[in-house]
Amino acid sequence: MKELTVDLGERSYPIYFGQGILNDIADLFGRQKIGASSKLLIVTDEHVAPNYLAKVTGLLEQGGYTVASTVIKPGESSKSLEMLDQLVTVALEAGLDRKSVIVALGGGVVGDLAGFAAASYMRGVRFVQIPTTILAHDSSVGGKVAVNHRLAKNIIGAFHQPQMVIYDTETLNTLPIREIRAGLAEVIKEGLIWDREFVEWLDRNANKLLALDPEALQYALYEGCKVKAIVVSKDERENDLRAILNLGHTIGHALEAVAGYNELLHGEAISIGMAGAAKLAVRLGYPEEIYTITTELLHKFGISTRLPSNLDTDKIMAAMMHDKKFQDGKMVFIVPTEIGKVVVRNDVSAEWVRDIVEQLKREG
Amino acid sequence: MKELTVDLGERSYPIYFGQGILNDIADLFGRQKIGASSKLLIVTDEHVAPNYLAKVTGLLEQGGYTVASTVIKPGESSKSLEMLDQLVTVALEAGLDRKSVIVALGGGVVGDLAGFAAASYMRGVRFVQIPTTILAHDSSVGGKVAVNHRLAKNIIGAFHQPQMVIYDTETLNTLPIREIRAGLAEVIKEGLIWDREFVEWLDRNANKLLALDPEALQYALYEGCKVKAIVVSKDERENDLRAILNLGHTIGHALEAVAGYNELLHGEAISIGMAGAAKLAVRLGYPEEIYTITTELLHKFGISTRLPSNLDTDKIMAAMMHDKKFQDGKMVFIVPTEIGKVVVRNDVSAEWVRDIVEQLKREG
Repeated sequence: MKELTVDLGERSYPIYFGQGILNDIADLFGRQKIGASSKLLIVTDEHVAPNYLAKVTGLLEQGGYTVASTVIKPGESSKSLEMLDQLVTVALEAGLDRKSVIVALGGGVVGDLAGFAAASYMRGVRFVQIPTTILAHDSSVGGKVAVNHRLAKNIIGAFHQPQMVIYDTETLNTLPIREIRAGLAEVIKEGLIWDREFVEWLDRNANKLLALDPEALQYALYEGCKVKAIVVSKDERENDLRAILNLGHTIGHALEAVAGYNELLHGEAISIGMAGAAKLAVRLGYPEEIYTITTELLHKFGISTRLPSNLDTDKIMAAMMHDKKFQDGKMVFIVPTEIGKVVVRNDVSAEWVRDIVEQLKREG
Repeated sequence: MKELTVDLGERSYPIYFGQGILNDIADLFGRQKIGASSKLLIVTDEHVAPNYLAKVTGLLEQGGYTVASTVIKPGESSKSLEMLDQLVTVALEAGLDRKSVIVALGGGVVGDLAGFAAASYMRGVRFVQIPTTILAHDSSVGGKVAVNHRLAKNIIGAFHQPQMVIYDTETLNTLPIREIRAGLAEVIKEGLIWDREFVEWLDRNANKLLALDPEALQYALYEGCKVKAIVVSKDERENDLRAILNLGHTIGHALEAVAGYNELLHGEAISIGMAGAAKLAVRLGYPEEIYTITTELLHKFGISTRLPSNLDTDKIMAAMMHDKKFQDGKMVFIVPTEIGKVVVRNDVSAEWVRDIVEQLKREG
């Protein structure tokens, strides 16, 4: 078992990585001083429940815990205020009090929704994340939790750090290949913003990762989380540095909103966004290789960087205007300056972005 | 103008009290470093809007600010996730970004809803409170914001401190007498939990306060806020001490939930609750005068302490079980031990509480 501490002062917490570590879940809860008198509510989805809900519930009950659970529909559309309302109903009916713990067993959607429920139920109860996707490595660091609004993604939320994260790489074996690819896109992003060596390692180990080689996977997830943990510990509430984690997300979020949250996977959307950011970099005079390395790496992982031509450019531009990264009337973009380094540019003209969106439809 | 600082480290903020101080609103915003580039969203309700919305908007626009506004229906039923959704729609359409400020112009309902919107919009933007009721003195200290759920009051929320509070006592002149009485009930509560001298002062000044004598009012609000500020600065997130502010609220919240949030005013409900807590105190062996002083003082302010007999006792008991103050299966009650002092008891039997609920229907 590998351990990474996300360093946030009194809100610091550990992430445990390993094959089969879910078997030790009751011990891990004990280590975090979650007493048996704390009621637990497991939130999971219809994809994850058949594989792991009974197992996790059983192990926790053996450990002396009282466990309630609820199963949501998979996909971004569950990240809604309606679902928050339903979770609160379940929590109240199960008798959850302030000492209770909400457990997110699943991917990013489950983590974001359950996390926001934990942040706001009784003005905040503890929560534990058990990611079962690759993408969720990203949302398991940094405490960003949220639900969506009809007009914008992740617009209603909080910063709420988990008590701990239990990352059992065995759970990844049941993922469809499309989600594996899309999840690795976010790992690639961590490399692109921070660590050229890690980018090169990813390039060499693409096939191992796609085949879910346990050792390669554990390394990639650990490194990805490490990059994010470094950034987040320096800027928990996204005042400045943390924004760099949004490479590819300005365009990416807009694409998700316009395509409908379940059409394009998050990793697929930000991959197109990263290609767009790389194009922007080149246009701003940074090295040409930024674009070629970014897109070739993504393609090696079987991820398309072409923007679906059926998505309307005007709608994409409008969605970007609602993005949280739009401040004081200027467009804010995370732009690579070399592989492993980015800057935040807040002077990007909407016209250039529109051009790039059009280009991405042709040649992404 | 009187000023009180709520001392919460880097989240400290001032409360300004005075007659007519709304006229200085743009200056006060400037003092808090709210720049003219920050968009403002004023949230108010249909009762307050006709009297103050145009004035406040005008003064802020004169000060160089861009101001959007939205008017909600008055009453607890607006504290819902549906209304949060609507506020977020307005905020997005008005182009509010992370540097924006949400301004709550109104009573506790407006403050709670707008405050939770500020806490969760883009994971947290600044907010300013302009209370226009007496009751709102209470919610303007301590940063508790929330919306209700069908099964429980204030169950979905956050701790989100305002940047400042502007308390113009002139705005209280348009309040109906029923709300004045109910608002003063919460001021009485501050006295009962902390300050016997203040209780005696309230007893001597009941008529002045009911007549909205500006000087008496400013003193009472300042003292009420001061008690709360002392308590909150020692325990921001309600780990222990802060619970004493809930005198009368265990029964009170249940009554509001059962009666329907708009039937009994909050101050009316907690007055019955305070009479109940005083009864409990006497039953636990504390001095008889706790009950007589409490109820006589409330009656002097024209506030009934009789529990409406149409409210079903079983439903009231069930609602208490959903209260946040119900922990580990025991009932938690704030119990006066003398006038100006309370303790938190977590060993109160449900049977006793049921008896008291029944008694309050007959003799409250």
